[in-house]
Amino acid sequence: MSSPTISSSTSSLPPWRSIISGALHRNRSLPASRYLQLATVDQRGRPANRTVVFRGWRDPESQLQFVTDGRSALRESAGTSKAEEIAKNPWAEVCWYFPKTREQFRIAGKLQLIDARSTDGQPERQAAWNQMSEAGKVQFYWPLPGAIRTMEDFGEHELTLAPAADFCLLLLSPLMVDRLELRGNPQSRSRYCLLDNQEWSIESINP
Amino acid sequence: MSSPTISSSTSSLPPWRSIISGALHRNRSLPASRYLQLATVDQRGRPANRTVVFRGWRDPESQLQFVTDGRSALRESAGTSKAEEIAKNPWAEVCWYFPKTREQFRIAGKLQLIDARSTDGQPERQAAWNQMSEAGKVQFYWPLPGAIRTMEDFGEHELTLAPAADFCLLLLSPLMVDRLELRGNPQSRSRYCLLDNQEWSIESINP
Repeated sequence: MSSPTISSSTSSLPPWRSIISGALHRNRSLPASRYLQLATVDQRGRPANRTVVFRGWRDPESQLQFVTDGRSALRESAGTSKAEEIAKNPWAEVCWYFPKTREQFRIAGKLQLIDARSTDGQPERQAAWNQMSEAGKVQFYWPLPGAIRTMEDFGEHELTLAPAADFCLLLLSPLMVDRLELRGNPQSRSRYCLLDNQEWSIESINP
Repeated sequence: MSSPTISSSTSSLPPWRSIISGALHRNRSLPASRYLQLATVDQRGRPANRTVVFRGWRDPESQLQFVTDGRSALRESAGTSKAEEIAKNPWAEVCWYFPKTREQFRIAGKLQLIDARSTDGQPERQAAWNQMSEAGKVQFYWPLPGAIRTMEDFGEHELTLAPAADFCLLLLSPLMVDRLELRGNPQSRSRYCLLDNQEWSIESINP
């Protein structure tokens, strides 16, 4: 059995990143190729799983960026804030399936939430707000997500340059990436792990 | 604030099932519409998330059916069997996104694994095996999933009428269904919960 390959430390980007970028490019005709499923664990120890939109990389750590409404707890019924839940259990795994090229990436790592009170990451939060459409921005002024629907106002709202108070940037720092290519017989599968020295190991594994 | 609607107890099927069946029908031109993401929690309390194929309903409980290889632990590195992990924490949440109709179903519930040793569910396990393609069946005779890739045989294998020893049927019993329709402004969102009397409550909630 051979030792895993270690990616070159001279490269500034992790070895899996160009592969995901290539998948995004080859699947660009499908708008849903930027949608992926984010799994977390709630305070009862149960999984939660929802679709999120990939909003680009945050360098230099190649974190995945998402946006989220701070009012919606990761599990609405738990009665705690999203920031509290993430601080207690930051672990997450996203599953990203690309239908056109038939490949799946599972990315496990830790989450960090940047909300209006965060001392770190405000420039990135502002940049993410700037990139939202008007229709996307206005939702952060709508009634409480997950609450019983009322006849409250879901209409227009005057938008400001500054992010809405509940607009949050969510960052995922990858620690393990599992890539499965369904094309081919047998399928190809690779596992990338972040080592203590911050280099990435690469292993070819059985599908 | 109005009380949630209670579905009629005379109906044999839960009220969300015909809605999912309708989504499956309207998205049938996309083969990936039968793919969904299954999140579980491993023994370290971390989420795991992977794509699975919907293999139909198991009545009368409207359980979702999947198939899985019993040799691949829910998290390979944990060193325990899939059956052991599921017995310790049966909670799961699937996220099912339909790209054509732009609707998402989050289905939370408990898993049950039917393997070769199960006293219950062998007819359903056999039926699921019968419905597998030859290419799908042969994978259950391949080398250990997730192990370092070797030059071992990934080729043909003589198939028998009986399921492969590691072929498992995985059942999800829904307890909560959250449906989000992205079309429309504002979007529509409904939550269905299984009550103690085995009826389903239906609530319209804020997106």
